[in-house]
Amino acid sequence: MKSYHMTADEFRRHGHELVDWIADYRSRIEDLPVLSQSKPGELRAALPEHAPDKGEPFDDILADIDRLIIPGITHWQSPNFFAYFPSNSSEPAILGELLSAGLGVQGMIWATSPACTELETHVLDWLVDMLGLPDFFKSSGTGGGVIQDTASSSALCALLAARERASKLETNRVGIQGTMVAYTSSQAHSSIEKAVKIAGIGAENLRLIDVDEAFAMQPEALARQIAADRDQGLTPFFVCATVGTTSSNAMDPLPAIGRICGKEDLWLHVDAAMSGTAALSPEYRFIHDGVEHADSYCFNPHKWMFTTFDCDCFYVKSRKDLIDTLSILPEYLRNEATESGAVIDYRDWHIPLGRRFRALKLWFVIRHYGIEGLRHHVSQHIELARQFASWVEADERFELAAPAPLNLVCFRHLGGDAVNEALMNRLNESGKLYLTHTKLDGRLALRMAIGQSMTEERHVRKAWERIQDSAESLN
Amino acid sequence: MKSYHMTADEFRRHGHELVDWIADYRSRIEDLPVLSQSKPGELRAALPEHAPDKGEPFDDILADIDRLIIPGITHWQSPNFFAYFPSNSSEPAILGELLSAGLGVQGMIWATSPACTELETHVLDWLVDMLGLPDFFKSSGTGGGVIQDTASSSALCALLAARERASKLETNRVGIQGTMVAYTSSQAHSSIEKAVKIAGIGAENLRLIDVDEAFAMQPEALARQIAADRDQGLTPFFVCATVGTTSSNAMDPLPAIGRICGKEDLWLHVDAAMSGTAALSPEYRFIHDGVEHADSYCFNPHKWMFTTFDCDCFYVKSRKDLIDTLSILPEYLRNEATESGAVIDYRDWHIPLGRRFRALKLWFVIRHYGIEGLRHHVSQHIELARQFASWVEADERFELAAPAPLNLVCFRHLGGDAVNEALMNRLNESGKLYLTHTKLDGRLALRMAIGQSMTEERHVRKAWERIQDSAESLN
Repeated sequence: MKSYHMTADEFRRHGHELVDWIADYRSRIEDLPVLSQSKPGELRAALPEHAPDKGEPFDDILADIDRLIIPGITHWQSPNFFAYFPSNSSEPAILGELLSAGLGVQGMIWATSPACTELETHVLDWLVDMLGLPDFFKSSGTGGGVIQDTASSSALCALLAARERASKLETNRVGIQGTMVAYTSSQAHSSIEKAVKIAGIGAENLRLIDVDEAFAMQPEALARQIAADRDQGLTPFFVCATVGTTSSNAMDPLPAIGRICGKEDLWLHVDAAMSGTAALSPEYRFIHDGVEHADSYCFNPHKWMFTTFDCDCFYVKSRKDLIDTLSILPEYLRNEATESGAVIDYRDWHIPLGRRFRALKLWFVIRHYGIEGLRHHVSQHIELARQFASWVEADERFELAAPAPLNLVCFRHLGGDAVNEALMNRLNESGKLYLTHTKLDGRLALRMAIGQSMTEERHVRKAWERIQDSAESLN
Repeated sequence: MKSYHMTADEFRRHGHELVDWIADYRSRIEDLPVLSQSKPGELRAALPEHAPDKGEPFDDILADIDRLIIPGITHWQSPNFFAYFPSNSSEPAILGELLSAGLGVQGMIWATSPACTELETHVLDWLVDMLGLPDFFKSSGTGGGVIQDTASSSALCALLAARERASKLETNRVGIQGTMVAYTSSQAHSSIEKAVKIAGIGAENLRLIDVDEAFAMQPEALARQIAADRDQGLTPFFVCATVGTTSSNAMDPLPAIGRICGKEDLWLHVDAAMSGTAALSPEYRFIHDGVEHADSYCFNPHKWMFTTFDCDCFYVKSRKDLIDTLSILPEYLRNEATESGAVIDYRDWHIPLGRRFRALKLWFVIRHYGIEGLRHHVSQHIELARQFASWVEADERFELAAPAPLNLVCFRHLGGDAVNEALMNRLNESGKLYLTHTKLDGRLALRMAIGQSMTEERHVRKAWERIQDSAESLN
């Protein structure tokens, strides 16, 4: 039979070439301009208007990576990437993704690849111990963990489970009735507002609670707002607390917030997307103080734990609440293992039905580095951030714009917003490093996020020199 | 500085080994038991209870693939996989995933890797022409395409955009007001019910419209239900029509449904997750007749177009409707390119904020096969399904349970449900092939989905022989 498939020998050859290309890319990455210098439409203008009728030699395709793709890449894996939060990666994670693609399994239910489900459950149980999280998040109890694509999806699933717990599944049945109210801090991630909209709650029913001088949620303000809403006859049901906000890495006080949620019977979701990884080291485990009050929790190994995007670990205290919320069982998915009740079917733990075998990369990363190796690199990033913060403090032209509890340093030039913006643009356009900004107390602040896998002291030192030089030349 | 990272040389070595392992796996896959014979808990019992403190040699990790993982794999890439719908793959797609992992970019906004956004927009525009879809789905007009993880997520995004169009964005602002009603057929995918629940609409406000003898939605019944709901003072807003239902591959009549949606001003979403790929060949493009009425459309290259899961292509006629629904712009994501309006920021086109570079695998697949190669294999699958259907019809012990317009054949043994279930279990337990079931008109039917990339005539012929032999031995 005629076939257009690539032969096994061709696959081996091109696969080896591509592995070597990636090794070379990672070796030279720190010399590439971090922020892509491509202009809008530049890549599209270089691509043919129509798909090819006939297949093309794979050598041509691979050659186009350097010619067409690389100029349009912002190099997240560069050690000079200090923007946003990192989306860091590592060689074992890349190999885990390769294996996942090579196996090509779709783990929507246990039976469609038991290993895909069981490895995920197992590794997520490992992580409960690795991060010092409460045992009730383990699958051996009433809870359990699942890999989601992102913390945005975890927040949505938490919000939905909370909505259904509060409404006794009536919302799922007949839709939103009355006014349900959710709470988070004014510094929380935009995904909470997005989730509230998606879930039919309405953005006006999300209360953005005031923060203190460290940009952390004020529990008294939360309690007051809940009381005021109850007085209005509204239905409070959900609080999202953040362990390490995106803007400035502020830590909401979980013990006080948790006590309020317990007293008021509200679902507490803890978003530790970036910072959760720090708890690998006992000395930073204080960030999880109070997490025992949480109904759900997430952190992203794809941010700071060397696991290629996407990999968000989402835990619930009661898997029944989550499954009752999202479960759908059409006839064509019925099977013996599911009916036996002895297995987990992860399709009921998130929005999509289908799912990739993402536990492989997480398993590879944990086994390759060991807890020791992960701790080492994460602690090192925090040390580098402290060093950077001390340099900022020692330079009278600059100030810290917020506390820097872990690996994010928010700082600003004292010259005002325009100077900071010019400084940032100049640095980013140089291609030598990439950092981004936020606003704190209405004023621009630059964000130096130190968490890229390959970032070493020399990169941070060089970045600070460039920041100083650019500040100098702006005067 | 001390480092636990894998060196470039080690990465090359293990990468080559893994590429070779995948090539070997794919060469021997048809001899492996298709449905995993693993028992619940078997893998977990073989894994250490705790994560390792010290890193382990990568050779040990790779050795565990054969020892631990393979027994727990249901081989979706086996040519003897006829279950569910395929989640097929190919060598170029695997290489595309490898490159995506190797680059490790996160394309939430244009600036964070222009190539990630522009290649996606470009390839999705290509596909509009390749499938004969309306030009308004192209980014050059008012619409555009985006890669989602699954058709479930596309359905949810379509439903949300419809909800906001109907409520003039009031739902996003203040939450669901009154009763909004959605419509789909009784044969539609479970993801529609899931989406309706998530969006706060309520499952009771999803009308499951009756189907005709071919399991396709009855447009007259739809029109009657809409009228009845309007009479009750409810607000109809959304219809999902399916081009190729999951249960039996039924084709809802788009022209008639589309006219009703136009007249009633309802959002029409067309779910062609599996079958859309058939439109690559002009002779099967009739499946898209009437799609010009659609407000949104999706199909999954990860089902039948050789592109490793996940890759669902979602199109909207008005990207403004979608973006207005899902857009969030916190300060830390503000940037010059976005403010200029000259670029697409895909974060506003779906639920998650972050996103992988999934367009690479789609680009690799299209360029490697060319339109000609894709057409060849897809047409061949349809031919094989027709052949299989003719064998069923020629055997008096069996009957077709539904029309087989493309690559799914629903059939049953005339002995009744118990016989069909026993037949299916015996076949699946043999490991020689894997097929699943559904219920049609209240009776069990076996589903033979022919779309795995490597499936050839000999696999289908052998499957039919085994089905006949098993039927024989059941007597």
